[in-house]
Amino acid sequence: MPRLSRRAFAASAFAAPGIAAAQPLAVPPGMLAQGGPVDVPYGQPAATEAGVKRRPRAGPGYAPLLGTAGSSLTPLGDLDGTITPNGLHFIRHHAGVPAIAPEQHRLVVHGLVDRPLVFTMDQLRRFPTVSRLHFLECSGNTPFYQQARIRPDWTVQDTHGLLSCAEWTGVRLADVLAEVGLKPGARWMLAEGADAAAMTRSIPVAKALDDAMLAWGQNGEALRPEQGYPLRLFLPGYEGNTSVKWLRRLKFAESPFMTREETSKYTGLMPDGTARQFNFTMEVKSVITRPSGGQSMGPPGFREITGLAWTGRGTIRRVEVSTDGGATWQDAALQEPVLSKCLTRFRLPWRWEGGPAVLLSRATDSTGDVQPTRDALVAETGPNFVYHCNAITAWRVAPSGEVTLAV
Amino acid sequence: MPRLSRRAFAASAFAAPGIAAAQPLAVPPGMLAQGGPVDVPYGQPAATEAGVKRRPRAGPGYAPLLGTAGSSLTPLGDLDGTITPNGLHFIRHHAGVPAIAPEQHRLVVHGLVDRPLVFTMDQLRRFPTVSRLHFLECSGNTPFYQQARIRPDWTVQDTHGLLSCAEWTGVRLADVLAEVGLKPGARWMLAEGADAAAMTRSIPVAKALDDAMLAWGQNGEALRPEQGYPLRLFLPGYEGNTSVKWLRRLKFAESPFMTREETSKYTGLMPDGTARQFNFTMEVKSVITRPSGGQSMGPPGFREITGLAWTGRGTIRRVEVSTDGGATWQDAALQEPVLSKCLTRFRLPWRWEGGPAVLLSRATDSTGDVQPTRDALVAETGPNFVYHCNAITAWRVAPSGEVTLAV
Repeated sequence: MPRLSRRAFAASAFAAPGIAAAQPLAVPPGMLAQGGPVDVPYGQPAATEAGVKRRPRAGPGYAPLLGTAGSSLTPLGDLDGTITPNGLHFIRHHAGVPAIAPEQHRLVVHGLVDRPLVFTMDQLRRFPTVSRLHFLECSGNTPFYQQARIRPDWTVQDTHGLLSCAEWTGVRLADVLAEVGLKPGARWMLAEGADAAAMTRSIPVAKALDDAMLAWGQNGEALRPEQGYPLRLFLPGYEGNTSVKWLRRLKFAESPFMTREETSKYTGLMPDGTARQFNFTMEVKSVITRPSGGQSMGPPGFREITGLAWTGRGTIRRVEVSTDGGATWQDAALQEPVLSKCLTRFRLPWRWEGGPAVLLSRATDSTGDVQPTRDALVAETGPNFVYHCNAITAWRVAPSGEVTLAV
Repeated sequence: MPRLSRRAFAASAFAAPGIAAAQPLAVPPGMLAQGGPVDVPYGQPAATEAGVKRRPRAGPGYAPLLGTAGSSLTPLGDLDGTITPNGLHFIRHHAGVPAIAPEQHRLVVHGLVDRPLVFTMDQLRRFPTVSRLHFLECSGNTPFYQQARIRPDWTVQDTHGLLSCAEWTGVRLADVLAEVGLKPGARWMLAEGADAAAMTRSIPVAKALDDAMLAWGQNGEALRPEQGYPLRLFLPGYEGNTSVKWLRRLKFAESPFMTREETSKYTGLMPDGTARQFNFTMEVKSVITRPSGGQSMGPPGFREITGLAWTGRGTIRRVEVSTDGGATWQDAALQEPVLSKCLTRFRLPWRWEGGPAVLLSRATDSTGDVQPTRDALVAETGPNFVYHCNAITAWRVAPSGEVTLAV
């Protein structure tokens, strides 16, 4: 992994204004009186962090509508590492958040099975459990197909905030399916949510028997209500809407069910008028989160360029970063552990001289897939495509230090 | 890794009462009306999870005292996986929680250094960053030395809840120290917190130059106030109190500073009247979290035995589980990834026949250290020792299914 040289520091960060030689520090008020209460059964962020919050994407059509379809984005530009704290996990919902008492919740598994069964939460919890770190991304993340709809004031929360990462716990769906017994003709699985949208998607049985989970845990604790409490399907690497929340029903059949959410929505309209259907796997992708849109560079000198990379096809093999709009590229360091279908944090030391710059990142995954330019992607799909935009994202640094979206 | 056989299921879980053949599910109320609001800038757990909370250890002397020394424990028996959500990270404090405005906070580095420096948070953030998953354990966790003080009604929250795990982000202390330049005689580092206790500990320079971090991030977001916002020292694998919170000062010297917290406290009183001092590294340890004290087994049949293992010396190599009080042992499966100085979740499938059982776990780490029995530990330290109890913990399962502490 590339390491920053000592020389880079000595000549940059510590020649910057604001570093003083040590003087006796004033004793701050917090050391002169007993501190605040610690009998806090469930802790909250510091009051001074209130600006780090979820919100809808900036622009017309993205305002939250109480109880109807909408989304709320993770503030990726304010976050470090790879884990998304549960309070900031992105939300995409189709009819608001149902309130479900876990002891009332049931999951039915039926259709082309030998033994149709109904499960309580307690019964599901008696299967062997599994915990895995995985990203979740909405296929509508990063709406870059139509240039006219891109807003230069978008931050990385606006462009990529329908992306989060957590340690998910539950049971392997394959273990549950071994109990119900799939009949030979079962090729597709319908997953239905217990929300007012009755969110439904068709999933190939091969995925259900591979790494699919019935998940109740998110970063150690129970799923948050907005993430499907008390039970969701979790399909690692698949577009987020297929990981059906508030999961109540799995039905097996020979063919896909052609639900509303896979015919009128979540398909890709191609230039010839046909639609790409069943685009499940999220493609290799990356984005620089710092510096990124809306941030200011401050004084010239050393800056770390850092961001996130991910792929639904396996692991991230490489992330390259350019500071000159793609003329030259350098390999970024990847933070270990690099896990399958999980966010990977990348980092590159950089010395900003105070001039203009255009910052790009380009990820390559374990299958050899390379993140495309926006031009290459639009040339393939046409401008009417909506989902699965994994284009390289550009951030423009002005000599003033202001950073804006440059796609 | 051991896997549960299909036979184990067919003969156990699904012969248990309560599993019904599939009938058309009733439509729950949540599907008949638009759901609740999703414009939640910072999400909270479901109301029905209010019982999953931090609290002081049960028993006299553990009640929280506003603003004075105390602790609050992570509900390990209610959690899955390895990540502790930030709201449930354990708290140990010596004078309450100071409220610190990050833009006012300063860190001074002085003593035997070439260039004493004061850092703002912004200046620290300009160093190359690092994110790592690590456990944190209070050395006062698991107070098992004196049999008379052990309460049979203790849950795993009482016995082991001064243990949490998070993805910590910050800068390598070694990178900062390269800037100030350590003088040849610098062998020890004083770390001081900005709380009313002026919490201070002496740390070997070798640790400061190894994997020590100046951390501001916890599971992606800013440190919680109770965990040292805006800045803490983080010493992977060391006893928790050395990872000084609200960090304001690092001073270098030839010898340890013999502060209150390393002379009158956090030493180990031996039978000959001497005290073990500077017991930094947390030893290899494990505990079964489910089934554990205060839980009920429910009907006989398949149960997964699961828990956590950790060591300050490296990685967990092996966890053995006994269901018969130590007469026989089986290897548990370790959830991947197994990371250094991080919690490792272990699991063993078990068929509970409804009779009495005594459940134990025994961890071995990458150095070959094996978790001792309580008897062996007390024989070595005597009964007046307080800290660093890594004894094997026993949970007794009654024929009624009630689980109690059996140490």
